Amino acid sequence: MSSNLNNQRWIYLKRPINQVGFEHYELVDEVLDGSLSSDEVLLQNRYISVDPYMRIQQAASNSWELPHPLDTLQQSGVIAQVADSASSDFKPGDWVSAYTGWERYSKVHSAGLSKLDPAQAPVTTALGVLGMPGRTAWFGLMEAGKPRPGETVVVSGAAGAVGSLVVQFAKKSGCNVIAFAGSDEKCRWLQQDLNVDTAINYKNFSDHAQLHQHLNALGVRVDVYFDNVGGLISDAVIPLLNLRGRVVICGQMSQYNGQLDSVEMAPRFLHHLLYQRATIQGILARDYSHRMEEMIPTVAPWIADGSLVFEEAIVEDFEKLPMHLASLFDRTSRGKLLVKI
Amino acid sequence: MSSNLNNQRWIYLKRPINQVGFEHYELVDEVLDGSLSSDEVLLQNRYISVDPYMRIQQAASNSWELPHPLDTLQQSGVIAQVADSASSDFKPGDWVSAYTGWERYSKVHSAGLSKLDPAQAPVTTALGVLGMPGRTAWFGLMEAGKPRPGETVVVSGAAGAVGSLVVQFAKKSGCNVIAFAGSDEKCRWLQQDLNVDTAINYKNFSDHAQLHQHLNALGVRVDVYFDNVGGLISDAVIPLLNLRGRVVICGQMSQYNGQLDSVEMAPRFLHHLLYQRATIQGILARDYSHRMEEMIPTVAPWIADGSLVFEEAIVEDFEKLPMHLASLFDRTSRGKLLVKI
Repeated sequence: MSSNLNNQRWIYLKRPINQVGFEHYELVDEVLDGSLSSDEVLLQNRYISVDPYMRIQQAASNSWELPHPLDTLQQSGVIAQVADSASSDFKPGDWVSAYTGWERYSKVHSAGLSKLDPAQAPVTTALGVLGMPGRTAWFGLMEAGKPRPGETVVVSGAAGAVGSLVVQFAKKSGCNVIAFAGSDEKCRWLQQDLNVDTAINYKNFSDHAQLHQHLNALGVRVDVYFDNVGGLISDAVIPLLNLRGRVVICGQMSQYNGQLDSVEMAPRFLHHLLYQRATIQGILARDYSHRMEEMIPTVAPWIADGSLVFEEAIVEDFEKLPMHLASLFDRTSRGKLLVKI
Repeated sequence: MSSNLNNQRWIYLKRPINQVGFEHYELVDEVLDGSLSSDEVLLQNRYISVDPYMRIQQAASNSWELPHPLDTLQQSGVIAQVADSASSDFKPGDWVSAYTGWERYSKVHSAGLSKLDPAQAPVTTALGVLGMPGRTAWFGLMEAGKPRPGETVVVSGAAGAVGSLVVQFAKKSGCNVIAFAGSDEKCRWLQQDLNVDTAINYKNFSDHAQLHQHLNALGVRVDVYFDNVGGLISDAVIPLLNLRGRVVICGQMSQYNGQLDSVEMAPRFLHHLLYQRATIQGILARDYSHRMEEMIPTVAPWIADGSLVFEEAIVEDFEKLPMHLASLFDRTSRGKLLVKI
């Protein structure tokens, strides 16, 4: 390996007020010294993750951690190949997952790497069904949602990386599944390929009252509401909770583009929790990182036998990473979005 | 006992849109046939309960049960003395608690009565600390709130029948207690007599942002939020939840006077649940009715040794019952409100 490499890095420059875009980043050329200290590894990043949580980190208000610092590399999960190694645990060509950022090459300590076996599962699954989104879907639904056969599970953002797994885990749990997505095409996919019982394009409804009325007319009553989106979908669904209903707050994507800093208004519906002795519970994937061994024996066979759809939307524009992050909030593609280098 | 009695009954006539008042009731004179069938008991009601939940039942929207029917007796808990009995279990003069309504006399089946022993505790406690409000406070805090020593417990409506017990149960659990009430006088009482650590008159704040700022400046971080009131207090408190914080929705009194039918708007703050992996849980006293034997051994000694303050506000105007119900939403008195006949 040559000791100097031409690297490119996306530097996060400026907090977005509303939608994130190119204007909040700068693509910087850099010469990376490829020489390695003991136990360091040089990674050539192959797939870069864009995830909705990144937009939370960009809000000025505090969330689960400090806001993403300005003037630094945009952090993200990546799938990489080892380009050079000063660690006995890794050799050139090995596939790994890591948490580095939006850059072509990363120099990291070997302790931060997880080795991937391409023979066992496609390496990209480490950022999807076998990674953070899969963990979120599995533990969020099974631990916080506690679905029981015959119950009705409602999922918002159902065509996304997490939601598309939640609806399938709910079907495999014997539940009646109602899925929300933002296009007729996604709804068709949810019904035809993922076998949800009812898919609803929420964009066909102008406000929560109209959507609520529609759900009510369908006779919908909700045992588990797995919420990735919030906003008008939650307003329509929460008053339809059944006794002991469970709401899992996994995301509130409708609120990220500005509303976290400048809060949107909504109906006060918490009194319905009282009537139904229902719960709302926030979850984060990181709380379950140490419990993947509980998930894998159940989920991996579904990947092997083809009974679990884990769609990946893979795009190829490293030069357009900020645009792909922005696209998460109104995109046509489904499943886990990855940027291939 | 004479066979005919002059009874008076408050008939619920009309659904209130905003505040409930005399215009929604009629006080009706009635001759009650005092003759009893087998196992019937004639009650002379002595204390009549007015409780915030009654206003929920008057909302047109469904809650945990059907709305209170019109043109019928206003239902309520009562403490009564047996005036006549055709049951071997009750004799004239016995004290009982029952769920009858706003009337001077009630003729009921003995199966619906609980006998009270005035030597063991004041009979009025059956509508207060040893009744529904006490049960709500105890199980709501201990089961749903799960307070641990050293944690911070925030209570809204802290001078009310439920709240005034919650703050004391929280202190006895070793917690730091922050109490909200609607007057400086109530706040003084909370600090001086109930030993809360901080009492805050929420009426001194014009909006949730101002209250939030005040709490933030005090360094408040919240492990348990026991909420009787909702509205701006919740808006200010929810963003201050600690990791794994628990919100107990016991009431939403700020919403009852009209807003249940015509929903008030509020900031969308559910994203904070995600950050803190917090929970919001609705509770109702009825779910714990069968578990009073768990509560009594702990709470009764505190009544006996005087270490638990259970204030009762006893008024004497049967003729003004609707006014007393309305007063719950902005009253000067503290603790459990009872109307003595």
